[in-house]
Amino acid sequence: MQGTFEGGTVRVGGDARQRFYDARGYGRPLEGNRIELAPVEAAHLLFRGDLDGVVGSDGEAMDFRTFLVATDVALEFVVYKDLRDRGFYLSPARDGWVDADDAGAASDTDFVVYPRGKGPADDEVAYRVRVAGERETIAAAALGEVVLAVVDEEGELTYFETGRPDAAGDADAEGSRYDPPVGLDAALLADRAVVWDPPADLHDRGFYGQRLHGRNAESGPLQLSLVEAAYLARRGALALDEPRVVERGRDVEGERFDRRLRAYAALRAAGSVPKSGFKFGADFRTYDTFTTVDEMDHSTRLIRVVAPDHTFLPRDLSLDVRLAGGVRKRMVFALTDVNEGIDWLSVARLTP
Amino acid sequence: MQGTFEGGTVRVGGDARQRFYDARGYGRPLEGNRIELAPVEAAHLLFRGDLDGVVGSDGEAMDFRTFLVATDVALEFVVYKDLRDRGFYLSPARDGWVDADDAGAASDTDFVVYPRGKGPADDEVAYRVRVAGERETIAAAALGEVVLAVVDEEGELTYFETGRPDAAGDADAEGSRYDPPVGLDAALLADRAVVWDPPADLHDRGFYGQRLHGRNAESGPLQLSLVEAAYLARRGALALDEPRVVERGRDVEGERFDRRLRAYAALRAAGSVPKSGFKFGADFRTYDTFTTVDEMDHSTRLIRVVAPDHTFLPRDLSLDVRLAGGVRKRMVFALTDVNEGIDWLSVARLTP
Repeated sequence: MQGTFEGGTVRVGGDARQRFYDARGYGRPLEGNRIELAPVEAAHLLFRGDLDGVVGSDGEAMDFRTFLVATDVALEFVVYKDLRDRGFYLSPARDGWVDADDAGAASDTDFVVYPRGKGPADDEVAYRVRVAGERETIAAAALGEVVLAVVDEEGELTYFETGRPDAAGDADAEGSRYDPPVGLDAALLADRAVVWDPPADLHDRGFYGQRLHGRNAESGPLQLSLVEAAYLARRGALALDEPRVVERGRDVEGERFDRRLRAYAALRAAGSVPKSGFKFGADFRTYDTFTTVDEMDHSTRLIRVVAPDHTFLPRDLSLDVRLAGGVRKRMVFALTDVNEGIDWLSVARLTP
Repeated sequence: MQGTFEGGTVRVGGDARQRFYDARGYGRPLEGNRIELAPVEAAHLLFRGDLDGVVGSDGEAMDFRTFLVATDVALEFVVYKDLRDRGFYLSPARDGWVDADDAGAASDTDFVVYPRGKGPADDEVAYRVRVAGERETIAAAALGEVVLAVVDEEGELTYFETGRPDAAGDADAEGSRYDPPVGLDAALLADRAVVWDPPADLHDRGFYGQRLHGRNAESGPLQLSLVEAAYLARRGALALDEPRVVERGRDVEGERFDRRLRAYAALRAAGSVPKSGFKFGADFRTYDTFTTVDEMDHSTRLIRVVAPDHTFLPRDLSLDVRLAGGVRKRMVFALTDVNEGIDWLSVARLTP
């Protein structure tokens, strides 16, 4: 059986509709029993030997190899074949091939994947998949609904599922809110602040700061990060001018400081307790069920603050997500505008 | 007992030499029994109550708190105190305070740390420590001998030991060298190459490429990364022009491609087998005792290729090193000039 390559798709006649579309979810029906196939579908049928060749505009029949080079769909082929091998039927999300709803709000979907046992004629979607090479940049704003399938430079596949959680994580904002006292004596140092005589609760229940005398100390002065200090100064908890602290923060890290402060404040407002994520290479780790320092759970999320127009290199995403997975935390990006709101984006490894 | 702050150091008389220098390794001796202390040492003695105050130029005695703010040595204090608490004596690496040899070739040493039980009068060094805040940038070229002590924004400490290994890792260059055949039929695709009928050994003994038919396939075409393809083309193994492959690589990732190719070739030349490090967010993972695909050990190193003038943000370093540690691999940076040699830099977590 042969197909004809014209206008960007491959048309197949004969009993193609029954054999390929109805029985196995390839292509989309045309009039009669004819179907049209996206190049990646035709490549897969060529690869399997279900199509013998595809006739190009020069009248010559192309085999799998020639067709793959001519259409350069190697990247899509790797993903398409992998999902087929895992037992899924899937459709290329070409204009008019799938419902706009199924393709999702973002126009960045490459494949609509149906639940196992379902196909294009059913009305269910398991995943919307976007295919990316290792070197492409991915706009953070385009993620949140799609599964990102990254093909690395050697052709290995990694799937990332993306979501749009809220600021709270699992935090119960009503649970254990701690209100710091007012006007605590504090000094601003080069890139941190020190509270000289903090009430015990500031650290033990609010989990602000770190003992200047070392992590095993149970009392004494507290070092605060500039983010913590700015947040507490804004609430009147420190005898420090908030603008002075913010100014110092900007000196140290530019407008990133404003972003980080916004994300920090949003996490606190949602009942979560953010602490430095330095040991994990992130901005914050969060404790979402925090009551006191003595009864601390494992931190549950790693937060990285980025600008709303941030673009990811897949490799950086892979690094963050792999690390978070290894320490059983959820990787969350805070897409934070200096003046506007925050969009939260979670990314995790997925095995379809 | 009081000290006097002048010219950047604190001078102490009385029996200071016996009490502080001889017995506990603080400061350096002056004439008679007097010593001088670096500000961080004086801060530590004030903190402990061993000094009652330090008299400044205005004739007023400063306590710990006032002295810390006046000298802004909070960062150094956190590290100094931690190492003391761990049982080490250490000296500030000020000009003329320690032997130039002890301070190391780099002038970036802040503290010379003596082995436990030893002190400044002995001639042994355990660590040369450089102190850095989380926001400072660290030149890669300045690492390799020092231990980097990073104080994060909340005052938590992380130690990184750095070294200068060679390209070989544990690889035995004589062991299992595989010489690929010549002139294999291959096609250049957008960001990869495909070898259509590879001999089995190309993958199984050379560990080049990845099956186009998926990772469980045992035969069929091999996808090669552009780096693998350029390396093999240079050796005549592929019927592809090396310059064409390199050109394609540069199109995809600029001069980083040249750097990565140099590092790849150096690793192969040293008997190591580099494969994509994408899943770990690195350039390569390396198999250093590779014989065949069927008898593969765990990969032992993660390699990130950077320019020789690269500067690290401590947080990025923390991310790489934490991930590598979590998967029991060694993090190695290849400081690679496009035209010159490669300096290898290993970085690992250290508990002093």
